[in-house]
Amino acid sequence: MTFDVYDTTLRDGAQQEGMNLTVADKLAIAPLLDELGVGFIEGGWPGAIPKDTEFFRRARTELILKNAVLAAFGSTRKAGVAVADDPQVRALLDSEAAVLTLVAKSDVRHVERALKTSRAEGLAMITDTVRFLVAEGRRVILDAEHFFDGYRFDPVFATDAARAAFDAGAEVVTLCDTNGGMLPDRVTDVVGALRAALGEGPRLGMHAHNDTGCAVANSLAAVDAGASHVQGCVNGYGERTGNADLVAIVANLELKLGMDLLADGGLRESTRIAHAIAEITNIAPFQRQPYVGASAFAHKGGLHAAAIKVDPDLYQHIDPKAVGNDMRMLVSDMAGRAAVELKGRELGFDLTGQAELLTRVTNRVKESEAGGYTYDAADASFELLLREELTGERPAYFEVESWRTIVETQPGQGQGRGALASAEATVKLRAGGERFVSTGEGNGPVNALDQALRLALTRIYPEIDRFELTDFKVRILDTEQGTDSTTRVLVVTTDGERTWSTVGVGPNIIEASWEALLDAHVFGLLHAGVEPR
Amino acid sequence: MTFDVYDTTLRDGAQQEGMNLTVADKLAIAPLLDELGVGFIEGGWPGAIPKDTEFFRRARTELILKNAVLAAFGSTRKAGVAVADDPQVRALLDSEAAVLTLVAKSDVRHVERALKTSRAEGLAMITDTVRFLVAEGRRVILDAEHFFDGYRFDPVFATDAARAAFDAGAEVVTLCDTNGGMLPDRVTDVVGALRAALGEGPRLGMHAHNDTGCAVANSLAAVDAGASHVQGCVNGYGERTGNADLVAIVANLELKLGMDLLADGGLRESTRIAHAIAEITNIAPFQRQPYVGASAFAHKGGLHAAAIKVDPDLYQHIDPKAVGNDMRMLVSDMAGRAAVELKGRELGFDLTGQAELLTRVTNRVKESEAGGYTYDAADASFELLLREELTGERPAYFEVESWRTIVETQPGQGQGRGALASAEATVKLRAGGERFVSTGEGNGPVNALDQALRLALTRIYPEIDRFELTDFKVRILDTEQGTDSTTRVLVVTTDGERTWSTVGVGPNIIEASWEALLDAHVFGLLHAGVEPR
Repeated sequence: MTFDVYDTTLRDGAQQEGMNLTVADKLAIAPLLDELGVGFIEGGWPGAIPKDTEFFRRARTELILKNAVLAAFGSTRKAGVAVADDPQVRALLDSEAAVLTLVAKSDVRHVERALKTSRAEGLAMITDTVRFLVAEGRRVILDAEHFFDGYRFDPVFATDAARAAFDAGAEVVTLCDTNGGMLPDRVTDVVGALRAALGEGPRLGMHAHNDTGCAVANSLAAVDAGASHVQGCVNGYGERTGNADLVAIVANLELKLGMDLLADGGLRESTRIAHAIAEITNIAPFQRQPYVGASAFAHKGGLHAAAIKVDPDLYQHIDPKAVGNDMRMLVSDMAGRAAVELKGRELGFDLTGQAELLTRVTNRVKESEAGGYTYDAADASFELLLREELTGERPAYFEVESWRTIVETQPGQGQGRGALASAEATVKLRAGGERFVSTGEGNGPVNALDQALRLALTRIYPEIDRFELTDFKVRILDTEQGTDSTTRVLVVTTDGERTWSTVGVGPNIIEASWEALLDAHVFGLLHAGVEPR
Repeated sequence: MTFDVYDTTLRDGAQQEGMNLTVADKLAIAPLLDELGVGFIEGGWPGAIPKDTEFFRRARTELILKNAVLAAFGSTRKAGVAVADDPQVRALLDSEAAVLTLVAKSDVRHVERALKTSRAEGLAMITDTVRFLVAEGRRVILDAEHFFDGYRFDPVFATDAARAAFDAGAEVVTLCDTNGGMLPDRVTDVVGALRAALGEGPRLGMHAHNDTGCAVANSLAAVDAGASHVQGCVNGYGERTGNADLVAIVANLELKLGMDLLADGGLRESTRIAHAIAEITNIAPFQRQPYVGASAFAHKGGLHAAAIKVDPDLYQHIDPKAVGNDMRMLVSDMAGRAAVELKGRELGFDLTGQAELLTRVTNRVKESEAGGYTYDAADASFELLLREELTGERPAYFEVESWRTIVETQPGQGQGRGALASAEATVKLRAGGERFVSTGEGNGPVNALDQALRLALTRIYPEIDRFELTDFKVRILDTEQGTDSTTRVLVVTTDGERTWSTVGVGPNIIEASWEALLDAHVFGLLHAGVEPR
């Protein structure tokens, strides 16, 4: 059976708020989609968007796809214009894409109210454009816009629109829930009714949006009702609430329903590929994203940890490796000794049978969390805590004597909005048998402290030059007390290969940040294999 | 017909990675859930988690709910222990919650492999615990853990578990897709089969997780198959991929299927409430979240904009006002001016017909928001901005010359965890024709700055003594840049009667806080009817 996985990340996904893909971005994403193993990559709308015209031009020489076929998106001809004279249709041919996907109105209200033309002309626009492009040797897919709303309002026109496309030579008619308002049982009803009208031969597709939170389920409902083509976007990108998440749809069809859809078993690479695409779009990945999210197989509840120790399958719906993801244990005050033991194993410490140690660590985690710490987002601080309990000490890379940070405005610059303040910090510490007094500047007190600390340490531990702060999060706890409250800071650091998170807590942000910074440097040195000097 | 909307944000939602709610957080979230109009608020697991024990203790006097009933979560008795002797069960009674929700194993594999006990004892644990608590006068809901996986493996045991709970007096048995691996048609099959076995009387509930991306659809499928109780979390919080998004479920049931579920038409407030809860959890809202997300009704595509000008319903699946959200055109300022006009009216300024002023204010809001400001949580700062555009100036209560803040440790006190730092600030300003130089101390730099500012101003404006900072929130924007990022601070101030919120943004937390503090004092003086002296 022919079944198409059709990706529209580069076209409909790019309509997401805040996303702005360059031609180079698109040329970098397309090979990742190809590696994922989709059958079609919709690259954009040549002729309507200049960047997309350019993308198809460069794709001819710069893009080598091993699995996917590139598709260009466009519209049926304008009302009252001969198809051969429509520049937008000509631009589709000029793109040289082998597959052309045409959007067409299948809701008669849109024909009459938005296009302000007749039913007959609405259907002729479909017939003419499909026939013209097929005669030019192209494969044509018709995206029937607003199909579900249109069918519910006027099933005759919607059915005629689909039939017109098939009669003119379209290979698939995709039913689009353009406004995203459908629920699965309505999708089942409409797809079933349309198949009853058209017969089993014509191939139907599904294009869902997530406005009801049901895009994935709506896509599955359409497949169950006989659709053999699904459209979606990696990471669920798209206008409003996004398009259907293509990886989630495929994972459900492959892992739950036994279908085999992606080339080269691409699903096993989907976590890495989804994250790589997020790096290019520069949209932070959603941690709770099904299958590929950072939290998708992360366990925190105490009940879960106890059972997972017995058998991981008791609390996992699939093996995370099937989508290239990993199980992670989160340590928190909800977790008991089992979670600490599993987390220890994940970090490379075998704590089996060390009941007394496990109790000590668990209690220390609970006390610390009661005081504002959180370890589920700070693996590195947890590992330092665990090592300290195992060995009785922390690695003594350096000894801080004192530190100070000053933020001040220049005279006349203190008046509120846009006050220009400078920040400076001084750190005094001993390392490698020497005493260092160093001063750093920054755009804020924490940045200045970090600079001063690095300046002092780098003379003894040049390895620190590779460490870079990549994220910094602040949470005020016990907010009832205004500025008297406790502050928690999470810091993410990378050495270019590995990334680690540390936590600090204190009565103010500077102290909390200082603690997280120290943990970050200690952890980094430890994992670089550096001995205290 | 009885139908329960059961919120578990404070219990299962709190198992989300990175979420760590304090007792104060829970006491602040519960009234928002009550305002949303849910029937039940599950507050936590007293006896197992010390913070939750404390929450129920404080809730008795501090929490007044007008719609919802508070439920405590716990477990059936341990295997081989008499129910009256199980301290965890006693803690449930001690919580004084009127509704107790018991988690129980309904998958025989969990009984045998995780609990390592017999089928008979597994069922007796349910019977004994439900009967005991019902005899103590409590309403009992049974959360049948792993029900779907369990039913598919051994329908007899799963059915017996549900039957045991009903026979012992449970009012609802909630079928939990604990691992989140279900698809809608499987939910339909299992709920249908169970109802066939139990008859129409016993009330079934649904508790879904989003691991397949189908949590909302699975909840709808269960309701369609006869469930009359749905559980979920606001913002879809929860372990792994999260629990079912309660607002999306309810919006689908109310707006698409015509049910009437939330008290006082709470759905119309759901966007505001979901965002307010996100402020407390300090987890950035997901912009593509169905119904309440910032992008949920934001239109970017050119096709959409053209049609929406004709008729907004052509590209919207519902009226956004039904969930308290707004349509936004990402390329037009039409929606912006209308919002400013409405907001102005809310604050007591009639801006009808003042097109030029509205454009000016809208543009300034857009520029500011692009720079990191946010006015939906900072009414007072917005009012100052609006007044400034109306009158051409800000009230000149004082003129700041410069400020400085220092945080430093004592020698020998700089070593990380528990470093004891002191904070001091100096402010130089002119007010009432005099120049003041004042120094304040605090447990952090912002607290010290606030003290210094007050000390200077209070000599001219004694009204300031009544102002008190009650909340202080920090959010780091553009987190890719680590400590180089932009900081947004929200400050909440009260004079004992009125409470107001101000915002500040800057390259570092001190500058951002300073700006928000200045706005807070200016707004307070203005609304106290004080003229510049």
